Amino acid sequence: MLVLTILGNNSAIPAFGRNPTSQVLQNQEEAFLIDCGEGTQWQLARYKIKRSKISHIFISHLHGDHYFGLIGLITSMSMLNRIQDLHLYGPPELEPIIRMQLEVSATTLCYPFHFHPLTKDGLIADTKRMEVSCFKVKHRIDCWGFLFKEKKKPRSIDPERAKAYEIPASFYEQLQNGQDYINKKGTIIPNDEVTIANAPPLSYAYCADTIYDPSLAEIVRGVDLLYHETTYLKDLEQRAADRYHCTTLQAGDIALKAGVRKLIIGHFSSKYEQLDPFLEETRSVFPHTELAQEGVCFVIG
Amino acid sequence: MLVLTILGNNSAIPAFGRNPTSQVLQNQEEAFLIDCGEGTQWQLARYKIKRSKISHIFISHLHGDHYFGLIGLITSMSMLNRIQDLHLYGPPELEPIIRMQLEVSATTLCYPFHFHPLTKDGLIADTKRMEVSCFKVKHRIDCWGFLFKEKKKPRSIDPERAKAYEIPASFYEQLQNGQDYINKKGTIIPNDEVTIANAPPLSYAYCADTIYDPSLAEIVRGVDLLYHETTYLKDLEQRAADRYHCTTLQAGDIALKAGVRKLIIGHFSSKYEQLDPFLEETRSVFPHTELAQEGVCFVIG
Repeated sequence: MLVLTILGNNSAIPAFGRNPTSQVLQNQEEAFLIDCGEGTQWQLARYKIKRSKISHIFISHLHGDHYFGLIGLITSMSMLNRIQDLHLYGPPELEPIIRMQLEVSATTLCYPFHFHPLTKDGLIADTKRMEVSCFKVKHRIDCWGFLFKEKKKPRSIDPERAKAYEIPASFYEQLQNGQDYINKKGTIIPNDEVTIANAPPLSYAYCADTIYDPSLAEIVRGVDLLYHETTYLKDLEQRAADRYHCTTLQAGDIALKAGVRKLIIGHFSSKYEQLDPFLEETRSVFPHTELAQEGVCFVIG
Repeated sequence: MLVLTILGNNSAIPAFGRNPTSQVLQNQEEAFLIDCGEGTQWQLARYKIKRSKISHIFISHLHGDHYFGLIGLITSMSMLNRIQDLHLYGPPELEPIIRMQLEVSATTLCYPFHFHPLTKDGLIADTKRMEVSCFKVKHRIDCWGFLFKEKKKPRSIDPERAKAYEIPASFYEQLQNGQDYINKKGTIIPNDEVTIANAPPLSYAYCADTIYDPSLAEIVRGVDLLYHETTYLKDLEQRAADRYHCTTLQAGDIALKAGVRKLIIGHFSSKYEQLDPFLEETRSVFPHTELAQEGVCFVIG
């Protein structure tokens, strides 16, 4: 099971009580922070997400509404005497900004801090339970989307049946990986006689800020949950294109083309007070859509 | 009349719903923002202070709890199509941090933005109604306090009396500046016969983050309102000194030595949930003390 918590969903300027973009994806052991607008450390506290559980932070691009809360979070972690490693992924230009701010405040982070610059599409993080890839999206400045995939889970052994077939415990790891067992008499015990498959790996894709780009559908094909921005309602398609953003209908179209299970939409322009029209318009194209509303937890799985 | 609004009073890490340091000092026409911790733009909105009225921002030093909200505020002002000039005062190292963050987001501020590096004690801003000086305080990194003084107000003319003495309107400005009038017969009309003095100029001193330093008393002597930090209660005097901060008793002592009218205290350590002990301890030395509590407006005058 994965849980995605929305910490903020607004674009550009804070408005109508909506915070800038930030999300947390959690499994049993790990928490992945995706973007980190100003005030994210308050939002983590409000929604009871432990800062110490966050092992990886992914910054899509260097517009302020996606990263101005990062330096505060990183330094607070140090003041709270964090000991765990922290891995940060973002455009290369992010590193000197952080270093400079640490330097002028004579701050040395008390925990191991690793910066990983994003330079090309592909696998960027390989954790205990998750593989994370990045992919370039088309925005006004360099911008990256992220694809989170659970690792393939080992098959579960049925201990009664394994014992009945007299399979030694030393072979259990191979059983979990799907191998058949051959006993001393040369008889093949098919793997599925003694194991059961676990649920297939779950996946989440975060498309960051992007112009309408149908080629994204291939990258996020079949994910369990897709986040796609809808900065504007459908009547502002030209403005969306001019500013390298998307409308409701365009987001729905990507979800439909990609055959995802569920779509969530966010990055709403500060000009809109009411968000219901976003939901209605996007659902007219892709019914399994929800608003990425602050504080909502989307359970994947 | 001057009004000081407290937007945040906490040190280091946000805690117990308290925000990091920021204050706004306002007269009829101008608003001066003093320090700008993360989330200050939300606090300005919450307390209905118009961003467009802020003409000058003063940053005491480059610890994050005093300036991490600055870049967000500056860029939001641009997204809101500000037209007024903005003057920013702070340590020289602040400028490249801002420039770099504007550059990586391909942002050009749409309004005239002027950075003024703080390098030595003295007058730094001379506005329509206010003179602002900076003074170095002793902290772990370079740090500045600020002294705000209203300009001397012209005397008010009593039009009935001025007319009775047949003083021409062309001499009114000189009257306002305190000059006596000599009429055609050579008779001296003493200035105070036809004018009345306005209230004396008001003053506010902001001592930023500082170790206990009795020499500050001379700099802030006689101000109407003094803000002095009290990061710790009196029992942690040694820790305060080690970290270049002050206790309650030390702040009270400075206020007493300086003969100020009123003292406000803030920059409370995140270790304290209750603030009442800060007030009690400081008042034991200097009775005219108040907590710099978020949202409170202190009226000076």
